[in-house]
Formats: sequence, structure tokens, C-alpha cells
Amino acid sequence: MTISSLIIRLEMDHRLVQFGEIASQVSHAGGDMTSIDVIRSGKDMSVRDITVHINDSDESPLLRRLEELQGTKLIHVSDPVFLAHLGGKIATSPKLMVKNRDDLSKVYTPGVAKVSKAIHENPDKAYSLTIKRNTIAVITDGTAVLGLGDIGPYAAAPVMEGKAMLFKQLADVDAFPLCLDTQDTEELIRTIKAVSPIFGGINLEDISSPRCFEIERRLVEELDIPVFHDDQHGTAIVVMAGLLNALKVTGKQLADVRIVVNGIGAAGVSICKMLLAAGASRLVPIDLDGAIVFGGSYDNSMWQWLATQPQVEGAPGSLKELLAGADVFIGVSRGGLLNSEHIRTMAKDSIVFAMANPMPEIDPEEALPHVRIFATGRSDLPNQINNVLVFPGIFRGALDCRARHINEAMKLAAARAIASVVSDGELNEQYIIPSIFNEQVVAKVRLAVIEAAISTGCARRIPPEIGWKMA
Amino acid sequence: MTISSLIIRLEMDHRLVQFGEIASQVSHAGGDMTSIDVIRSGKDMSVRDITVHINDSDESPLLRRLEELQGTKLIHVSDPVFLAHLGGKIATSPKLMVKNRDDLSKVYTPGVAKVSKAIHENPDKAYSLTIKRNTIAVITDGTAVLGLGDIGPYAAAPVMEGKAMLFKQLADVDAFPLCLDTQDTEELIRTIKAVSPIFGGINLEDISSPRCFEIERRLVEELDIPVFHDDQHGTAIVVMAGLLNALKVTGKQLADVRIVVNGIGAAGVSICKMLLAAGASRLVPIDLDGAIVFGGSYDNSMWQWLATQPQVEGAPGSLKELLAGADVFIGVSRGGLLNSEHIRTMAKDSIVFAMANPMPEIDPEEALPHVRIFATGRSDLPNQINNVLVFPGIFRGALDCRARHINEAMKLAAARAIASVVSDGELNEQYIIPSIFNEQVVAKVRLAVIEAAISTGCARRIPPEIGWKMA
Repeated sequence: MTISSLIIRLEMDHRLVQFGEIASQVSHAGGDMTSIDVIRSGKDMSVRDITVHINDSDESPLLRRLEELQGTKLIHVSDPVFLAHLGGKIATSPKLMVKNRDDLSKVYTPGVAKVSKAIHENPDKAYSLTIKRNTIAVITDGTAVLGLGDIGPYAAAPVMEGKAMLFKQLADVDAFPLCLDTQDTEELIRTIKAVSPIFGGINLEDISSPRCFEIERRLVEELDIPVFHDDQHGTAIVVMAGLLNALKVTGKQLADVRIVVNGIGAAGVSICKMLLAAGASRLVPIDLDGAIVFGGSYDNSMWQWLATQPQVEGAPGSLKELLAGADVFIGVSRGGLLNSEHIRTMAKDSIVFAMANPMPEIDPEEALPHVRIFATGRSDLPNQINNVLVFPGIFRGALDCRARHINEAMKLAAARAIASVVSDGELNEQYIIPSIFNEQVVAKVRLAVIEAAISTGCARRIPPEIGWKMA
Repeated sequence: MTISSLIIRLEMDHRLVQFGEIASQVSHAGGDMTSIDVIRSGKDMSVRDITVHINDSDESPLLRRLEELQGTKLIHVSDPVFLAHLGGKIATSPKLMVKNRDDLSKVYTPGVAKVSKAIHENPDKAYSLTIKRNTIAVITDGTAVLGLGDIGPYAAAPVMEGKAMLFKQLADVDAFPLCLDTQDTEELIRTIKAVSPIFGGINLEDISSPRCFEIERRLVEELDIPVFHDDQHGTAIVVMAGLLNALKVTGKQLADVRIVVNGIGAAGVSICKMLLAAGASRLVPIDLDGAIVFGGSYDNSMWQWLATQPQVEGAPGSLKELLAGADVFIGVSRGGLLNSEHIRTMAKDSIVFAMANPMPEIDPEEALPHVRIFATGRSDLPNQINNVLVFPGIFRGALDCRARHINEAMKLAAARAIASVVSDGELNEQYIIPSIFNEQVVAKVRLAVIEAAISTGCARRIPPEIGWKMA
């Protein structure tokens, strides 16, 4: 339970209510009043802001009590989350100040004309003379936002802005949010292609499955800048990083373990692909209708692809049946699917990544006694699998080497780089994945991504410090 | 002639050339060497950066001389305009720093979910909880960039970035450049509608005529945020501002004067519309084939509209014929169309705005003896007609009152506000328009735009300080 604070603006009619009554209602509702500001005061009426600490889930009974109190009018309730969002979370800023006509003629007319001419003659110069080399778009259509689903482009904006903030703070990438008002696959592809010239990369976000596969595939083919659907690959990379370290702790090998992946949507597909690329040989992908099996036939093109991979097991069955004997469970599905009985059927030293949000696939308290390593998406437990570990560094690297794409080699390199931040001496059951605030993460991911891009022929530029190292 | 400086990186082979020879070539080409940095130095070779001041138009002979000199290799030439553009001219910046998990859970997951939910329930909250209320897009398709024409979206970017800088510095508007990779009218409309949710306004820029009319008209109809094609209306507003003051100086009335507008493209159409809205009664619009006349028939829909306006004169003729007896000439066409003989046929106390770039419709030195008031787009002459005077303030006002559109009343109010910055005491033939650095401009334009928006029912919010004034 997290404590949050509310700022409640109340109008009081002193003829009908005393402040003591308000204070006592706050206490009865479990609130802790920590400050009072008188905003306006008259003979019979006053307006006050009261700050109250309270448990997150408990705020409506408190507000109801105050509303029902005779002589009290609730004008406004703010909480710090909303206050942090007032006016949005990012701004644009000029890199130079225009102080006089001479400055103006450098950055705008007439001087800018020769810069435009230079790019017209050689479009590659867009990378040196415009924001392209450091700017990406964070693009969504608002169809699969957090756990909220299809809430549309307006409501998706705070998430995209939050991501843009993190790009800048963690990796100095300039990111701008675009929330598109269309859900048509072809229209999305056309729109993203049309806006692409100013950007050096595209981070797709919160686009529902299976549309997201086609949209990403087409954009990767048709654009010459990296396109990366974070819900798929960001999650897969950080899962892979955690799994590499978890296997190290348990002394098992990726090529030997039997891995159940539950929830074969955007993230699940990418996790399966990355596991196969990394050398997994016994994979059990499961969705709502049970296992996706080798040799099976499926409408969903990504499932069909999985059904042609010999490392995918051929035995049909439900999650509960197929979990028996598995070394690894990776859940990107729904909360509360499993209990301790199911987990107990797994192999010895089992590894469970239960990443459904906000409730994991199995209750942590129930799982912990029966597994060797347990990870979730939650920040209040050890081993948080959070793709904030991935996207800043992977785009920093891709931009710095002007990568054409972000290919599987670069993704796997990013996963290994994240895993490597936890040293062998530090590694243990409770610490398989670094904190998102660990400053080594972005630097290591960036370098690994650049090296993988160069060695796979995907880089169009060798950053000077890497050139020196290679020479 | 503006002096600019170049930084020239030279490799010298000391066996073949002495530095004195280089210095003397620079002098002979009219350059003034102001600094020398030795970058690398060896037994026979050295690399030096020399900074040279030189007239803008003169740099290629100097570089040729240096290239032809035995033992000298030109490695690189930078000029300050290019240096100012390295890496682009704007950045994005987070408004808050994420210092710990608690911060992260406020601006990103899980806290951001309740902000998204709040907007999903009431989309109007996008104006308070996202960047929408202060953010506009500067959008082009790169078809009519400066005087360069159709140079495409990549080459257009430096102009759009320059504009974004000015929006921020002059009016604290966050502006982001989008350079669209399509020239199809319907596709442009669809794309701009699709990207619109994150923005509070759209500044269209450098889109060729007559496509720009249809694109703007449709977007104004189909979006609920202001859409403003600056090449049309920005220019029209600042021309109107200048003309209002010019008429004051000459003691003439707008309703009486005969006005020739030459060049009926994006800017010319908007100038004509604004003149009519402001009360002009004798208008002569002229394009390449001569006058557009009352009762005439034209393919271009905007010309056809002009042909139905009774204030438009009915006599056909060429520019030179119809200029005779005119009180006002407004040129938004091409350089060097007119000479002093033509200007001499105008009425007494004539007003000439010759705004073709970079060469005005008539050479200033030729015109000046024969006109009362002369204005151009150039910064090296008095009375510069520059739409930097318009766009920052008009969007500041439109955003602050959450205007649905930027209507004719708001545009005319902006023109009057710009004119009013020059007081009666200051007003004279050489000073009809304020400097773009005059701090009163944005404040006055903003206020006038808000008041006009409120009085025409176009505002969706009354800014508090205006509310107090009205109460």
C-alpha cells in the first residue's frame, strides 16, 4: 500500500460547521492532516487548502464524508500525481538565443536558406544540420495503454510524455510524443512514414496486438531509420537480461531448460523470438486456448511462425498441465492465474517471472516458498523487470551509430549488457537485474548496441571513440 | 553586403608552401584573417584552422585560390551559419527530474495511469494534464520553402526549427517541427488530422499555392484547434499593420485609397481578404496574366472568390497600366518588376510595400525619391515587414484563450495591435512598424487576439487576468 497525499480545497460556512468537525472526519477516514492554508476568509465563510496523507485506495470515503458534512463544500481535490502533470511534462527549448538581427539571420531568414540548400543537395546532411540525429518520436494510437486498453490518443499522452522525459533524462535523447487519431493499420503506417523525416528513430508504444506486428514490420521495411516497438522488444530484452542472470544463479544452461511463456501477444512473441535467437531449445508458448504447438495451424501470423520452429514443443495442453516440469515460467498475461500447487509442479530451482500488471500471474507470497528465483514488474519487490532499463540505452546506441534498424543481434547485445551490470560477486536470487537508476546501464547498453550494429553491418556511422578502440 | 566569417581547416606541406603565401592569397581575395589555430603539426606537414572575415558573396574565389595553391589541401570549411545549425536548433526538456522510484511512479507507471484515466473520462482535461495547452506543430511539406521552392521535407527542417526557436523565445510557446514526406493534398490533411491530438494549434508553413488554401480550409473545418497558414495570414497581418500606420502618416483613409496587390498566391490572397475585411473599397489584385477583375471567371477558387467582391475593380490591364493613380502598391511577387517611371505614375504620397525576397519588386534606391513611404522584407532597410512580428503573439493569444480558430476578427485585431506599438509621437515615414525585438509586440498581439476571440465567440477559456478586467 502506498501512502499518497491529497490537497483538498474546502469552502466552510462557519455558521454550520466548525473546523474541528472537518479534522475529525479526516481522522475517522484514516487520513492524516499535515498542513492547512487559509486561501480566503470572510465573516461567515472561508476557503482552506488542507493537505492530507492517506492510503491510495482509500481516498473516496474520505471525500464522501467531507461532501456530506453540512456547511462544507468541496471545491477541488488535487493530488501530487495530477499536480506533476499540470501543463504536461516536457517542453521544447531553443539551443541558442536570438539576441539581435545578426543572430536571427543565422538561425532563420535569410541565413537558414543556405543550410536548407545544403541539405537539398545532400539529404544525409539532415543528420548534422537538423535535430534528426538526436530526436526520436514516441508514437502510439492509444489502443493498448498500460493495463487500461483502448483509451485513445488523448488519454495516452501522459504515458508518452513520461517516456519522453525518461529518454532525455537517462540518455539525453530528445523524444517527442505523437498520439495518432487513427486505428487503421494502413493509415497508421502512412502517417508514421509521412512524419518520419525530422526523426532519427521511431519508438512505437502501446499499440494493440496483433496489429502492432504488421505495423512494425512494414515500417522497418519501408523506413531507413530504426523502428522499435517497446512493448514487444523492450520487455523481451529486459526479460532476457533477467533470465541470463537467473540461469547463472541456478547453474542451468539456456540450451537445456524448458521454458513456458504465457501470453503470446506483443511482448510474448518478442520474448519467444529472442529466446530462440539466444539458443533456447525447449519452448512452450501458451495463450488463452492453450499451447501453440510445433506443426499447428494458426490465423495469427506470429503464432504460425512459432508453430514452424522446431524448438517449440509439439504437445498440446493447458498452462497448468504444461507447467509441470518446466524450469522457467515467463508470464506476460493476467493476474492470479496460478497458485502454489501449480508452481510446485515445476522442476527444481524453478525461475518464475510473473509480469502481469498490477497483479502478477501468481501472488508473490504464495510463489516465493516454492521457487528459486522470482521476478515481477512491481517496484515494491526485488527483481523488477522494467523496460526503462532498455529503451534509453538502445536508442542512444542506435542514434550514435546511425543504425538503419535495431536487429536481433543488437537486442540480444542489449540484454547481455543489462545482465552484465550485475557483477558475479553481487549476483544472487534477490538481485538478478540492476536498478533503473544504475548509471552503468545506459552506457553499457549503448556500447553493446553500437558494437552489434557495426558487426552486423547495420551502422552507418562509427562513433569516434569506438573507431579509436577498433583501430 | 553582410560580412561573414569562415573557419578554414588547411593541411600544409611545408616543403611546398609557406604560411605567408596562404596569408597573401587570403588578402588578395579580399579576406581578413583574424585568427590561426594549429591543430596538428609534424616535420613536413601541419593542419591549421584559419578564421577569415569576408563578404558573403565572395567566398568561392578565396577557396579556389587556396585549393589551387601547391602544397595546400583544404580539409574543411565551416561558417558560423552552419556551426549554429550543428545538431539542430531545438531540444526537448523534461519539466521535472525523476530522482527516485517515488518520482518515477508519479510521472510514469504506475501513477500515470490515473491521469490517463481522468483524460479518458473527460478529454478536455488534455488541456490541463498534457503539453497540449502550450504546444503547437510547425508543419510543412517542403513545397514552397523561402525563395527555394520545392526542396522537400528534409531541407525544410532548418526553417521549421528556426521558427520553433522563435516561438519559444518570443512567446514561450512550445513548438515542434514536422516536415511531412507527402505532397498529396488529401494525404496531408489526413496526416495532420492524425497527429493533432497532442497539439493545441497547427502553424502551417511553406506549403505551395493553391494547395495551401484547400489544406487550410479543410483543417480549419475538421479540427477543433486553431490552424494558421503563416505564409498567408502572418504576412497579411503584418502588411495590414504597416499599412494602417502608413495611411496615418499620409493622412489617407483605407476606405478611400486605391490599392494594387501584385502576386495573388498564398500571401496575396490573404492580404486581399484582410484589406476587404478592414474596409478597403478599391482593390486591384494582379497576377502574372494581369488584373483579376470583378465579374471575371477563374479556375483558382480564391481568385474566383475575389472576382465576386464588389470592391475589386472591373478594369482589366497589366501591372504597369493599373499602377497609374494607385495610392498603395503591395508586392508579394518577384524582384525587379518595376522601375522609377512606373512608380512615378502613382498618386501623390504613394505607399509602396515591395516584399519580394531577396530582391524587392523595385530597387529601393530607385523607388525612394518617388514615394512617401517605402517598406520591404529586408532587414537592412527601414520598415521591415517581417511576420516574426505576428506568429508568436497570435498563437500565444489563441492558446491562452483556447481559441477554436483564428478568425478574421482576431487577425485584424493582431494587425491593429502591431500598428499600435508605434506611438503617434514616434510614427514617421521611416518607422511605421516596430522591431521584432520590441517586447511590447507579443504582449499587445496576445491581448488583442484574446479579446477578439472572446467577442466573436471563438474562445473556450477566459484567461483569469482578462476575466478580472471584464468583471
